Amino acid sequence: MDQSDLKAAPAWQLSERAIKLTSSAIREILKVTERPEVISFAGGLPAPASFPAEEMRAAADRILRDDPAAALQYSATEGYMPLREWLAARHSVGGVKVRPSQVLITTGSQQALDLLGKVLISTDSPVLVETPTYLGALQSFSLYEPKYVQVPTDEKGLVPEGLTPELTAGARLLYAIPNFQNPTGRRLPLERRQALAEFAKRAPFPVIEDDPYGALLYAGEPLPTVHSLAPEHVVHLGSFSKILAPGLRLGYIIAPEDLHFKLVQAKQATDLHTPTFTQRIVYEVVKNGFLDTHIPKVRALYRDQCEAMLDSLKRNMPEGVSWNRPEGGMFIWVTLPSNIDSMKLLAEAVAQNVAFVPGAPFFADEPQHNKLRLSFVTVPPAKIEEGVAKLAALIRAHASHA
Amino acid sequence: MDQSDLKAAPAWQLSERAIKLTSSAIREILKVTERPEVISFAGGLPAPASFPAEEMRAAADRILRDDPAAALQYSATEGYMPLREWLAARHSVGGVKVRPSQVLITTGSQQALDLLGKVLISTDSPVLVETPTYLGALQSFSLYEPKYVQVPTDEKGLVPEGLTPELTAGARLLYAIPNFQNPTGRRLPLERRQALAEFAKRAPFPVIEDDPYGALLYAGEPLPTVHSLAPEHVVHLGSFSKILAPGLRLGYIIAPEDLHFKLVQAKQATDLHTPTFTQRIVYEVVKNGFLDTHIPKVRALYRDQCEAMLDSLKRNMPEGVSWNRPEGGMFIWVTLPSNIDSMKLLAEAVAQNVAFVPGAPFFADEPQHNKLRLSFVTVPPAKIEEGVAKLAALIRAHASHA
Repeated sequence: MDQSDLKAAPAWQLSERAIKLTSSAIREILKVTERPEVISFAGGLPAPASFPAEEMRAAADRILRDDPAAALQYSATEGYMPLREWLAARHSVGGVKVRPSQVLITTGSQQALDLLGKVLISTDSPVLVETPTYLGALQSFSLYEPKYVQVPTDEKGLVPEGLTPELTAGARLLYAIPNFQNPTGRRLPLERRQALAEFAKRAPFPVIEDDPYGALLYAGEPLPTVHSLAPEHVVHLGSFSKILAPGLRLGYIIAPEDLHFKLVQAKQATDLHTPTFTQRIVYEVVKNGFLDTHIPKVRALYRDQCEAMLDSLKRNMPEGVSWNRPEGGMFIWVTLPSNIDSMKLLAEAVAQNVAFVPGAPFFADEPQHNKLRLSFVTVPPAKIEEGVAKLAALIRAHASHA
Repeated sequence: MDQSDLKAAPAWQLSERAIKLTSSAIREILKVTERPEVISFAGGLPAPASFPAEEMRAAADRILRDDPAAALQYSATEGYMPLREWLAARHSVGGVKVRPSQVLITTGSQQALDLLGKVLISTDSPVLVETPTYLGALQSFSLYEPKYVQVPTDEKGLVPEGLTPELTAGARLLYAIPNFQNPTGRRLPLERRQALAEFAKRAPFPVIEDDPYGALLYAGEPLPTVHSLAPEHVVHLGSFSKILAPGLRLGYIIAPEDLHFKLVQAKQATDLHTPTFTQRIVYEVVKNGFLDTHIPKVRALYRDQCEAMLDSLKRNMPEGVSWNRPEGGMFIWVTLPSNIDSMKLLAEAVAQNVAFVPGAPFFADEPQHNKLRLSFVTVPPAKIEEGVAKLAALIRAHASHA
């Protein structure tokens, strides 16, 4: 065949949802940041130093030695039962009893969002999201063509008083990230969690609590999850990506059995089940309390990295630039002077081998253009200083032109 | 909290597609067949004896020793590039050159179906399927609410002459399994492949060639894939489930770049990427020609199992029962006397600890009730004889009551 034939792919009719699909801005930027000379504050990638590679290696070896027929075979859509039981026990806190029959293992937390979209969202269904919210959730839900409704937030996160009957009428779900939110790094205070739980109890739709970062608290005591305050009215999403390793793609959904059952049906049609082998590896690694010693190490690493970035920001940033001081997680949210568009700043920064994620794609509607998200977890402190100094110089140049 | 609160899960409004969702009949049966005393001809599970556990164990160990940071980290949505390159080379046969840029790694072949549904099917889009067809494809596509149109088939498989302009008008895709079809075990003859390829070249929609069983040819030469006959007009789906192990959930889509790009966007929103670690394990296992010696062993095993079942059927089945002689794959398709409903027969068989899959769920429309699918790959020959004899006795009892 000749080249002209090779290129003769016909323009097939795509679905409505596919026509609307766009690539993630983060993803396009990550391509640039694969160059080793780039100082990337863009990624939501956990630090590889935190991956328990030797423990996983030993677990993989044991599993394939002792039980290869089961570990490599098809398995139940709901997930590996010992892991579901372990998760149910782990989330049974403060008088709440989570049942293994509520736990569905997913191919990463992202799949949890896809399954919830499949099961809850019809075309033009109102879907409530924070302002801003996780870009990946917007991408997942958008495949089911909802109508987004932004819930008001302030510097502490979602404002429960904003959940008026007018705003929430007809909604199919409310999506929130109470712990160290992506992109803002904010932690929702206790009284707002309580108010959100009370709202969930009255709402005719579920509150989805996405909690991939909850374990990454730098100091002090964790706040109760919204799920623990209204366990039959909140759907809780968890992940092993930030506390073990993201490359295994292991997350989970805790939901009331009625919804769980529909999610299982949807998952069966979506990928049959999450890989058996990776589920068994994670169970082998965590079953004897490994996380009790491992998570504090990840916390300390991220806390020190965060501290380094906060110091760099303080030393370098000009007046008119502000940011939050995260209590955990992976992100700092920066507000620029209102005349600076972070998308334009990104182009200049990348030319100087520094990357971050502009804030605009995190807004379901009416984006704020003077925001940006910085991640500090994979960059050594000396490079953090260098990268922040370069960003600060670019911002200063803009400010002087204003 | 008390028990009444535990059970107070509200009835949340579900999406239209979720309301229509039903569980797979296969899945419900598989639950029964987990009892060790059941002789199950129901599963599409490959024989664990065929899993190369030691090779995978060595590969997992090497990867986690030499490159854990990459193997456990987030990775590209498209998949692990060396594996994509290997697949492109493997499918570059007969003058066809497949480009790595066409290959998308999926979380099992089932996810390929979900992604194609996402990208190609709008509500009420006509979707062409064989009569009967793979139940799992019907489940996947149904989430996108198509209108199924059954393509005529005969004992050789899909009849290309049946693809009239009237039947195919407005279709978004044609889904076919040319090699050892699930559930019928049929292999599409060469001239029909050529006719289907010619149809694909003219059609304003893609022909989807699902090929999980192609390598499981018992004897002789493989027939060319439809994809190889019209590479820019056919989307080819492959899987490692039947030639290595299904528990890893690794499949792939070969598609023209335009469609590939949309599928990547959809996959990003669906699960970000397929687990990095499992992709690397499979690449490590296959990269040096392992399949050249491994696949012949799987073929020989399945051929002998198939032969044992064919012998048992011949010895035991009464007049009026017919079946095909597969040239490969995992399934035999049995036609009962027209007065016997295979769903009712299943209930009786399960009571005697024998299981199979009734034919009806494999039909998109107007099911035939006197068909059933037998899988022979995981049952030892003595048990095959015992199970077939029991089935035959049940059928004989029905026939005598007719």
